[in-house]
Amino acid sequence: MKFNFSDSVLGMKPSEIRELNKMASTPGLISLGGGMPSPETFPKKDLEDIMNYVMENYADLALQYGNTLGNDSAREVIADMLKKTEGIQAASKNIIINSGSQQGLYELATVLANPGDTIITEEPTYVGAVSAFSANQLRMEGVEMDQQGMIVEGLEGTIRKLMGDGRKPRFIYVIPTFQNPTGYTMPEERRKVLIEISETYNIPLVEDNPYGQLRYYGKNVDSIRSMKNGENTIYLGTFSKVMTPGLRLGYTIAPDEVMEKFNLIKQALDLATNSFSQYVAMEYVKRGVIYRQIEENKKIYKVKRDRMVSALREYMDGVARWSEPEGGMFVWATLNGNIDTRMMREQAMRNGVAYVSGQAFTTNNTQKSSMRLNFTFGSVEQIEEGIKRIRKTVDSYIEKH
Amino acid sequence: MKFNFSDSVLGMKPSEIRELNKMASTPGLISLGGGMPSPETFPKKDLEDIMNYVMENYADLALQYGNTLGNDSAREVIADMLKKTEGIQAASKNIIINSGSQQGLYELATVLANPGDTIITEEPTYVGAVSAFSANQLRMEGVEMDQQGMIVEGLEGTIRKLMGDGRKPRFIYVIPTFQNPTGYTMPEERRKVLIEISETYNIPLVEDNPYGQLRYYGKNVDSIRSMKNGENTIYLGTFSKVMTPGLRLGYTIAPDEVMEKFNLIKQALDLATNSFSQYVAMEYVKRGVIYRQIEENKKIYKVKRDRMVSALREYMDGVARWSEPEGGMFVWATLNGNIDTRMMREQAMRNGVAYVSGQAFTTNNTQKSSMRLNFTFGSVEQIEEGIKRIRKTVDSYIEKH
Repeated sequence: MKFNFSDSVLGMKPSEIRELNKMASTPGLISLGGGMPSPETFPKKDLEDIMNYVMENYADLALQYGNTLGNDSAREVIADMLKKTEGIQAASKNIIINSGSQQGLYELATVLANPGDTIITEEPTYVGAVSAFSANQLRMEGVEMDQQGMIVEGLEGTIRKLMGDGRKPRFIYVIPTFQNPTGYTMPEERRKVLIEISETYNIPLVEDNPYGQLRYYGKNVDSIRSMKNGENTIYLGTFSKVMTPGLRLGYTIAPDEVMEKFNLIKQALDLATNSFSQYVAMEYVKRGVIYRQIEENKKIYKVKRDRMVSALREYMDGVARWSEPEGGMFVWATLNGNIDTRMMREQAMRNGVAYVSGQAFTTNNTQKSSMRLNFTFGSVEQIEEGIKRIRKTVDSYIEKH
Repeated sequence: MKFNFSDSVLGMKPSEIRELNKMASTPGLISLGGGMPSPETFPKKDLEDIMNYVMENYADLALQYGNTLGNDSAREVIADMLKKTEGIQAASKNIIINSGSQQGLYELATVLANPGDTIITEEPTYVGAVSAFSANQLRMEGVEMDQQGMIVEGLEGTIRKLMGDGRKPRFIYVIPTFQNPTGYTMPEERRKVLIEISETYNIPLVEDNPYGQLRYYGKNVDSIRSMKNGENTIYLGTFSKVMTPGLRLGYTIAPDEVMEKFNLIKQALDLATNSFSQYVAMEYVKRGVIYRQIEENKKIYKVKRDRMVSALREYMDGVARWSEPEGGMFVWATLNGNIDTRMMREQAMRNGVAYVSGQAFTTNNTQKSSMRLNFTFGSVEQIEEGIKRIRKTVDSYIEKH
C-alpha cells in the first residue's frame, strides 16, 4: 500500500516544541523550551477531593457523553468566573467548552476561513496557532510588534494592502497580554484602536488570553472582550495555567452566529469535550479553589521570573537584549550579531540547555536571532544554570563562526 | 460585525442526534435515539479506586501536557490489550490515542484526502463519520449493504466507475461488526475480498470497530486488521463502550507513514489527548477490570437486545422489517409502505418516543422509511414501551396520510 496524503498535511512541519517535550526527560538537560506549568502549581489535594466528590455525586453524568457545546452548568460557572476575573460579561450560551484552547484555535480557523484565505497575526506569534492555521491552509500575515504589542498603524497598513490585493483578512489574531512568545502586553489605548479597526473593516478580532491571570508586576490591563464595544471579540481562555493542562479544558466566547458554527464543527471534531474534566473544573471554580490557586501560582512564578531576569542581566549583558515581562510564562531574548539560534540549538543541547528558536514563531521567516525562554517549568536553580549554559553556548558559537 | 463563514461549515447540517441528546431529559420521553451506553455499565467503584491511585502515584504526569501521539506506556498497554481482545498484532508506535474515535475519523479525513475528494462508505453509515467527512468537504459514495454488510461486488463496481470519472476514492470506510446503524456483521469471506480490493486498487481500508467486543450471539468474526494481509488496514477503536464515553478515549492503529501525519494534525487539533484519562484507562486495562466489565456489559445488553427484538416481533409484525443483530447497540427497522420516518418524528415525540430517522445515516438521500433504534440506554421496560409507542405512531400516521 502506498499512502497518498492531503495537501494540508504535506505542507506542515513538525514542531520544535514537540521535539523538546520528548527530550524534557533527558538526564541533565535543563529545558527552558516547552510551555509547561510547574507541577508544584497543580492543586493535587483539592483535585483529589473534587474528583471523589464528582464520582460520588455525578458519576452517571460525568462519565457519559455530554452536550456538544459543553455542560450547561459548567458554561454558567465559567460565565460567572469571567465576570470576576476579567470583568467579561458573557451569557453561558455564548461559551463553548473545548479540549484545550488549542482546539478553540483550530475551530476558528475551520469556521471563519477557507483554505488559501489570509489572516493577520502578531509577528512573532504562538507556535500552536501557526500549527492550527497551517493545518487549515491559511496564509498568515504577521504585523510587527514593539514592547507595546502589535503596532496598530502597521495593522491598518497591512489590511489596506491586503484588501488592495483582493485578500481581505478573515480575522485578526492577537495575544494582547504577556504574549507568547515575547511576553509583551498591549496597553489599553492600542486595544481600543484594535476594536475600532476590527469594526471599521468588518474583520473579526480574536483575543487569546491564556496568561492574563498571571500578572506579577504592574497594573492590570482590561481584556479586549471586556472593553467598550468589545463584545464582538472572540475570546479564548483556558484552565491549563490556572488548574492543570492534563485535563484539557479551554473555552471560547463568541457571538450567537459563530456559536452555531462551532456547534457543527465541534460535533465533527470529537463530539464533545471530556465530561469528567468539565465536572472537575466546575467544582474547582464553585469552591473558589481557582482564585486561591491563581494567587499561589503568581507567588511561585514571580520568583522564577525574577531569577530568569536577574540571570539574564548577570550572564547575557552585552550579548543579547530581552523582554522583562510583567507576567505570563516567557521571556523573549534576541542575540546580538546575527547569530542563528536554530543553528546554535544543537550546541546548546550538548551544553545541557534547551530553548525554542525564534523561527518557530515566525510567519515570515524572520526572528532568526531570537529565542523563547520559559521560566515556569524549571526550578530557580535550573533557570539560573540554564541561562549560564546559554551564555557559554553563545561564546563558543561565536568563537567557531 | 457581520461574520463570514467557511464553505465547509456552511455545507454542514445540524445532527438529529445532537438534538435528541438534548431532549433525552424531557420528562416521560423514551429515547431510542442516541447512541449512549447505559450508566449501569459504568464501573464506578473501580474507576474511583483507579482515580485515587493515579492521583496518589502519577499526579505530576497525569495532570501535565502529554505526548502528541499519547502516553507511551498507555500505547503499550493498548497494544497488549488488542492482542488479547482482537488478536491484533500492532506495535505501540503505530497507535495514536485520540479524544474519542470521532477525533480519529476527523484526523483520517484531514490527512488522507483533500476537500472535494471522494471516499467510499457503507450505505447507510455512521452519522458521526458523515459529520467528520462533511467537515472536510469529502464526497461520500455509499455502497449498498445486505445483511452481510457492504456488498463487495458493488464496491468493486463503484471503484471502477469512480476511477473512470477521474475520482479515485481516497479511502474505504467500513464498520464491519455490528454496524452503526444497521447492526449487520460482515462475514470473513467478504472481509478477505475487502482486503484484496484495497490492495489491488491501492485504496486504504479503514476499519471502525467500536462494538466488536459486545457480541451476544454467534461466533466471533476476526477483525480485518488482524487477518492475513490486513496489516495495512487503518483501525479505529474506543474505550467509550467498554469503559465510559465521558473520559473521551479512542485510538487509531496505522502504518508508520500515516502515523507521521497524525502526529502533525493531532498537534494542530488539541496538542494531545487528556493525560488523566489515559492514566485511568491504562490502569483499567492493567488491572484487568476491562475484561470483567466487557462480560458484565454483554450480560446487561443481551437482555435489552432480546427485549427489543421480542417487542418488535410483538408490535411491529406486518408494519416493518428489522435487523436482529448478534451484538452492538442498534437495531435497524424499515417501515412498510413508504412512510417517511423523518416526517413521522414529530408525532412520535408527541407520543413520547424518539428514534433517529434513516436519512441521518445516508450518503445518497435514501433510507427514508428506516429508523435506528438504540437498545443500550433505556431500561427493558422503556424499550418495550418505546416500541409500543412507535407502533401507535405508525398506526395514527397511516390513518392521517
